[in-house]
Amino acid sequence: MEHSVTKTFGILTSGGDCPGLNAAIRGVCRAAYDRYHMNILGIANGYRGLIDGGEANVRPLNPADFSGILTRGGTILGTSREKPFKADDIGADKVKAIRENYLKYKLDCLVVLGGNGTNTTGYLLSQEGLNVLGLPKTIDNDIEGTERAFGFHSAINICTDAIDRLHSIAASHNRIMVIETMGHKAGWLALYAGIAGGGDVILIPEIPYDIKAIGAHLVERSRQGKCFSLVVAAEGALSIEESKMEKKDRKKYRADLGLPSIAYRVAREIEAETGMETRATVLGYVQRGGTPSASDRILATSLGTAAAGLLARGEYGRMVVQTYGSIASVDLSVPAGKIKKVPRDHPMLDTAAAVGTCLGV
Amino acid sequence: MEHSVTKTFGILTSGGDCPGLNAAIRGVCRAAYDRYHMNILGIANGYRGLIDGGEANVRPLNPADFSGILTRGGTILGTSREKPFKADDIGADKVKAIRENYLKYKLDCLVVLGGNGTNTTGYLLSQEGLNVLGLPKTIDNDIEGTERAFGFHSAINICTDAIDRLHSIAASHNRIMVIETMGHKAGWLALYAGIAGGGDVILIPEIPYDIKAIGAHLVERSRQGKCFSLVVAAEGALSIEESKMEKKDRKKYRADLGLPSIAYRVAREIEAETGMETRATVLGYVQRGGTPSASDRILATSLGTAAAGLLARGEYGRMVVQTYGSIASVDLSVPAGKIKKVPRDHPMLDTAAAVGTCLGV
Amino acid sequence: MEHSVTKTFGILTSGGDCPGLNAAIRGVCRAAYDRYHMNILGIANGYRGLIDGGEANVRPLNPADFSGILTRGGTILGTSREKPFKADDIGADKVKAIRENYLKYKLDCLVVLGGNGTNTTGYLLSQEGLNVLGLPKTIDNDIEGTERAFGFHSAINICTDAIDRLHSIAASHNRIMVIETMGHKAGWLALYAGIAGGGDVILIPEIPYDIKAIGAHLVERSRQGKCFSLVVAAEGALSIEESKMEKKDRKKYRADLGLPSIAYRVAREIEAETGMETRATVLGYVQRGGTPSASDRILATSLGTAAAGLLARGEYGRMVVQTYGSIASVDLSVPAGKIKKVPRDHPMLDTAAAVGTCLGV
Amino acid sequence: MEHSVTKTFGILTSGGDCPGLNAAIRGVCRAAYDRYHMNILGIANGYRGLIDGGEANVRPLNPADFSGILTRGGTILGTSREKPFKADDIGADKVKAIRENYLKYKLDCLVVLGGNGTNTTGYLLSQEGLNVLGLPKTIDNDIEGTERAFGFHSAINICTDAIDRLHSIAASHNRIMVIETMGHKAGWLALYAGIAGGGDVILIPEIPYDIKAIGAHLVERSRQGKCFSLVVAAEGALSIEESKMEKKDRKKYRADLGLPSIAYRVAREIEAETGMETRATVLGYVQRGGTPSASDRILATSLGTAAAGLLARGEYGRMVVQTYGSIASVDLSVPAGKIKKVPRDHPMLDTAAAVGTCLGV
Repeated sequence: MEHSVTKTFGILTSGGDCPGLNAAIRGVCRAAYDRYHMNILGIANGYRGLIDGGEANVRPLNPADFSGILTRGGTILGTSREKPFKADDIGADKVKAIRENYLKYKLDCLVVLGGNGTNTTGYLLSQEGLNVLGLPKTIDNDIEGTERAFGFHSAINICTDAIDRLHSIAASHNRIMVIETMGHKAGWLALYAGIAGGGDVILIPEIPYDIKAIGAHLVERSRQGKCFSLVVAAEGALSIEESKMEKKDRKKYRADLGLPSIAYRVAREIEAETGMETRATVLGYVQRGGTPSASDRILATSLGTAAAGLLARGEYGRMVVQTYGSIASVDLSVPAGKIKKVPRDHPMLDTAAAVGTCLGV
Repeated sequence: MEHSVTKTFGILTSGGDCPGLNAAIRGVCRAAYDRYHMNILGIANGYRGLIDGGEANVRPLNPADFSGILTRGGTILGTSREKPFKADDIGADKVKAIRENYLKYKLDCLVVLGGNGTNTTGYLLSQEGLNVLGLPKTIDNDIEGTERAFGFHSAINICTDAIDRLHSIAASHNRIMVIETMGHKAGWLALYAGIAGGGDVILIPEIPYDIKAIGAHLVERSRQGKCFSLVVAAEGALSIEESKMEKKDRKKYRADLGLPSIAYRVAREIEAETGMETRATVLGYVQRGGTPSASDRILATSLGTAAAGLLARGEYGRMVVQTYGSIASVDLSVPAGKIKKVPRDHPMLDTAAAVGTCLGV
Repeated sequence: MEHSVTKTFGILTSGGDCPGLNAAIRGVCRAAYDRYHMNILGIANGYRGLIDGGEANVRPLNPADFSGILTRGGTILGTSREKPFKADDIGADKVKAIRENYLKYKLDCLVVLGGNGTNTTGYLLSQEGLNVLGLPKTIDNDIEGTERAFGFHSAINICTDAIDRLHSIAASHNRIMVIETMGHKAGWLALYAGIAGGGDVILIPEIPYDIKAIGAHLVERSRQGKCFSLVVAAEGALSIEESKMEKKDRKKYRADLGLPSIAYRVAREIEAETGMETRATVLGYVQRGGTPSASDRILATSLGTAAAGLLARGEYGRMVVQTYGSIASVDLSVPAGKIKKVPRDHPMLDTAAAVGTCLGV
Repeated sequence: MEHSVTKTFGILTSGGDCPGLNAAIRGVCRAAYDRYHMNILGIANGYRGLIDGGEANVRPLNPADFSGILTRGGTILGTSREKPFKADDIGADKVKAIRENYLKYKLDCLVVLGGNGTNTTGYLLSQEGLNVLGLPKTIDNDIEGTERAFGFHSAINICTDAIDRLHSIAASHNRIMVIETMGHKAGWLALYAGIAGGGDVILIPEIPYDIKAIGAHLVERSRQGKCFSLVVAAEGALSIEESKMEKKDRKKYRADLGLPSIAYRVAREIEAETGMETRATVLGYVQRGGTPSASDRILATSLGTAAAGLLARGEYGRMVVQTYGSIASVDLSVPAGKIKKVPRDHPMLDTAAAVGTCLGV
């Protein structure tokens, strides 16, 4: 028998914008409201709103608030990059403020939607004694414990559309086109969009590249009569040489080049190596915004309603996930402080190689 | 060590058109050609081409044939609905013709891309002593043994786009809009697109509907001030009454109504039950065609390259699949003669119910 | 010098849903509010809301109401197909009610967004002494006096996407695919989408077709090795034989066939004429809904702000239009009671013919 | 009576890639081949191919070459940025080579598809005694003599999609998002996409901006509770201060800033002026590639078939255009050496202002 009738939870979205946040909010809230008759408090602008509290930041959500938002980009709650545990003089005060507002608003649980940082904060708050549930959101797909976070598939679609467009330009001009996707530490987005778009070279942070290998691959393609190529590079991709540098040396090296983005660096290197005309495109923020894909709406809805189930059963301290193709949950310690990288033996790397894609080595 | 150098295989696409066929052909052929140095014979128009043989139907495929086709809809090989084992007078001759051409063209294996029928035929041919590998293709996602077939996600996207468009019409006119997706025996497409599009009612063949329950749901929504609703129905959806009829009686019942499509029947029933203005849309063939989604290109490429691996290792009589979130393979007997339906306890049904969707009962 | 400070106008949307209504409402209201400081009354559900009046139907619009609606499908005002002048016993009362509410709400002008019917009603109301301004909205593009109405380009995009998808199916199966677009009396949508999609045959109401000519064209294509074809037919297309029938005889003829839609009739005729496998798709309501195209947002915004200018200058009794490539206005008598058909010498017909499209004759 | 049976023309595409080139090639060739029975020579890689000549660069085009290309991005002929009249030592030789090949291949006319540069070259070649016809292609829409060039509408769509995505990010983060479109000398693309996307500020090269005016506008929006804004800037937009600099001083000023793109410069200026968090996105090459929009396919087809008509009638030395909403032609001297800029009194500027958009002044 359910005893969730009088439960109250707060819900917030934190970190960068990402398609599917509203779909997930709707999933959590509809199930919590209709099925479990809970009270819902919407918290504005991520953890910042919970630190500050007050009417401007914490307000009851009613069905009219979470109706009709399934297809909308962004988040009706607003977001921020506030990290309350981040070590600074006032860090402790922020956590204290969160705890006080948690008690003040009589929350049975705090539901947080976000990426690695957001769920790590959620874990730390749960260690402080708060009930917390996490939902995995990121276009980078780098959250440990889940096969997919929502936002990832929308970003794949956006990047693939862009690659499709650049393909015609590359072919018409007999050019190399380098396209940079998001992904600082993990190359999932570049890898999947690269396969979907038929990238001839895919560069990810996990595999430092050898410009000689890339050049040889492009020259060989040219010998086969394929006079254009597409290079898909995650923003965190780097050369073998760069991978051996200290972080500050790497930073200086890039600053001296005057080319902060990988797309421009690798384009210059390819021109130097092969003599082929090469152009760079940095996709940027468009990867993060707009209407979620059908696939992300489904995942966000599934994860949201699953989170409501955990709420109802009082299973706190967990993050809902997709694993082995199904919806489940893991302890919040699983994603905390981690980044899910592409392992060297990931089958998608073999898939890419099998269709002739150069992975930079 | 690989001994696949001299292997030769035939490849064909069979059954209805489906996004991702060319991506899968490319995946199989690129891996087989580049990695395993096999010879490839492209067979035109499905099993019909293999029955007929000859230069017009069987020709070597070279890299130029399977290059640049990743994003293209349709199939470069052509397709047909030929079912060589179907019981008619000439059925035996067709199978004999296939066996003879298999030998004549010195095939080490036949790779078939298709749905339930195609893979069932593949299984029967393997029982006849031929080496066969199957790839699962269908927008209906009703192939036993795989979580997803390629084409399914593209169709979800197309249906979801249509539902999004009908949503604005329903809202502007305070109407009920009924939208019919494909899915004769299995309701996967209606269920997933219905969740993605925020369908208020989702009707699938596996759950005969009670028009009273639908009417009550729509009236209740109206009482809550939601004066419009979206009903997503698989083409094979049927009422409880119809589900109790003999097949021929059901056929007659529908013919007498003059309404062959579920969308029109259920629209009429809703108007009769609720008095609300209701309109029907049958999506039709657009669900089957055009550029595959990024997600289907990735799946088709993964399955294709995996099939090439099976070819190289001589693991015949299997269908490549996605299961537990990974690429694997199952015996061709697994899909043979079966239809994968939505089980009553499938978690997506609960997800739909949790966001307030009526499943017709 | 502007004296528009104290002006008050009512605004309503009437007739079928159409992409761009919200963009046009925003255009009128933003310009009227920001630039001319007018008072705006939003009228719900078309002329019905003005007949009924009352708080539920007539309410002030503030910037929050018309902000953020540029990209949204549908109409925030709701719509209906109410035709107050339509000859029935209560027709006179409806017009009287409109006049009374016009006076009661102290309107300086009534702004109506709609198609032929809506603007005809607007004209008739202006003949009754009311100040009226019309904006042309229709996916059919059949409003006299304007080159383009908003909604038309969005519908072209939707139809063209569908034709692109059907193209791959036709090619894979060597089939004829017939696709039916909207357009009862005028074939603009079929003609433009047919050219954009590369239709091999385009059938419009203005040119009754000869099935012999169509058959000959398809057979000739087949002889040239083009074994598939796309036929784009407006819903009002008809054969030469049908064009000679009385309306009621035509209705009976079609009812007896059991094929109310042109797509199904012409598909059957093509199969009978050529023996080629032919399939029909009726696009239906999806043509009317959803996010407006960029082009329609621009047109709707231009027409809307131009209407606000007329309001400010007191130039009533007019419909804003696009003519000779520019925004202008015409007397409301211009569209009243008329339907803009495709003239036999329209240059787009020649364009279609020049790329080898059969126009049915 | 037509005497065009034995005519032969060459066709080339020159300048940057642009959606609709293949559609236009198809339009010219289908009409010329089917209707006028001309011989067609396809010239590879723009004027470069005509300079070099030879089998690799000049080859007969048959229906199979220009069939099925309507929807494809890029150009089947390839392109280059070769400008044969550009003053260098070998310039004269290039023109001579073109003239010799024109004679060698017995061309009755040369059809050139391109932007300002391409049509200027076409004009100069016609002054040299060659028969030339031009088609206007550019995403910038800056070709004198035509209301629209093909490619422009596709680019508007791409930019508007991107603005729509950035809108959700801006709203979720309460940020200013600056988006940079193409347009060095002319701001058509930024202006039209800015209106379609609801840009709050639109900056074009023709109207040097005052950062004070922009800041005041954004602060005023913020006071009205609109805490986010979208700034759409053409790549050639510049401040009033920059507009007063000599070109080389401006270049140095920007280089010293380390911010070559307007998006980054204006983002920094806005942050300095308002203190609001501001982010920049440079759309880049994706604006130039991929499948043409329905609208551009129609325009390209119309212009192409019209060009074939001029060919048939021997009306050389002209560029086909859209003017006053119709297809027509102008003398090649009209576009030669000119850039069509947005005039200060263009109605679209007033439309933008009327919906509250700041134009930077």
